[in-house]
Amino acid sequence: MIIQLALDRMNMKEAIEMARTVESSIDWIEVGTSLIKEFGTTSIKKMKNQFPDKKIVADMKTMDNAAYEMDLCFQEGADVATVMGAAPDVTIQKCLEKASEYKGQIMIDLLNVSDSRFEQLQIYNQAVFCEHVSKDSQEIAEHVVAKMRKQDGLIRAVAGGITLASLPEMIRQGPDVIIIGSAITKAKDPAEAARLFKETINMVKGVNEV
Amino acid sequence: MIIQLALDRMNMKEAIEMARTVESSIDWIEVGTSLIKEFGTTSIKKMKNQFPDKKIVADMKTMDNAAYEMDLCFQEGADVATVMGAAPDVTIQKCLEKASEYKGQIMIDLLNVSDSRFEQLQIYNQAVFCEHVSKDSQEIAEHVVAKMRKQDGLIRAVAGGITLASLPEMIRQGPDVIIIGSAITKAKDPAEAARLFKETINMVKGVNEV
Repeated sequence: MIIQLALDRMNMKEAIEMARTVESSIDWIEVGTSLIKEFGTTSIKKMKNQFPDKKIVADMKTMDNAAYEMDLCFQEGADVATVMGAAPDVTIQKCLEKASEYKGQIMIDLLNVSDSRFEQLQIYNQAVFCEHVSKDSQEIAEHVVAKMRKQDGLIRAVAGGITLASLPEMIRQGPDVIIIGSAITKAKDPAEAARLFKETINMVKGVNEV
Repeated sequence: MIIQLALDRMNMKEAIEMARTVESSIDWIEVGTSLIKEFGTTSIKKMKNQFPDKKIVADMKTMDNAAYEMDLCFQEGADVATVMGAAPDVTIQKCLEKASEYKGQIMIDLLNVSDSRFEQLQIYNQAVFCEHVSKDSQEIAEHVVAKMRKQDGLIRAVAGGITLASLPEMIRQGPDVIIIGSAITKAKDPAEAARLFKETINMVKGVNEV
């Protein structure tokens, strides 16, 4: 199970320092949408240069202009790029083509995607499917945690409001990638928080496998 | 009828020069999503500094993290910011609140938004509603032009593949804002193209008003 650290709402120096602090406990580093919009796609290159051995996820949240946006982020060193499930199919297809060209990967963000749209999207089975409770939804309701819709045979990720308390339940849903943001980055001791996330994942996985 | 010039897929120097070239024929200047993602939200400030008397539209295409993204763009001088109609309601509401705080405006991008979702969105009647055929959809089909769904009492914009040839039909649909990108920016003579757009709008409007 991969831990993806989501970095948002900070400057690049803070983002790089945060990633450095927790790097031994996490697998993928996400350059969040807010970093990309605030500082441009050079934020992706800066992160990749610092962490050449980690997978860098560019949270582009592409809705249109797919070829251009994918060129931008993959050329800056992204390994994975996100596209919205709410985008037109032609946009998602173009992202997948571009990812294949760069030997990268696409994550389809299922934010606000209906069950019927989710079904349509399953033809893109080379992508990672990310169930996602938005930051804005989390802010108006406590303890909202993403639910993974049942579907075998897809690579699955989950994001939004995951804490150490909700982690075991989340792990039992069986995602391939667990995306954690503020539960690590806003922790008093981010290194310790990240270590606990990793330890809990290893422990619960162990129990599940018995 | 307002002409909004959409600037995309170029560097900031080119974007500013383009806006300068056509400024007498256009009303609002859109800093396109590709400029924001490539160069960061400073692109908005750079444009506003050059054109303090024009309304600057920041095509943020916000899907989440609304307060943060709206602070970013309005503080950089945006007068109008876009949010996706496909975003959760809480995100759209937060964008509207933030716009009101900054005395700015929100444009709801109806890209890939179903009729039923469009109906739900109509409660946000202080926003500008933008019918939008995506760049990616335009690239796979010729002569795709946005259709405005019938609805009275809303401020309406229209974007996507509008050319001088399709302009009269578009004007007859009665939008408040016509968004034009490559038909001006990729024209051999952008100043002349922009002038013709303005002239056609004035002419067709005149005919309609008879």
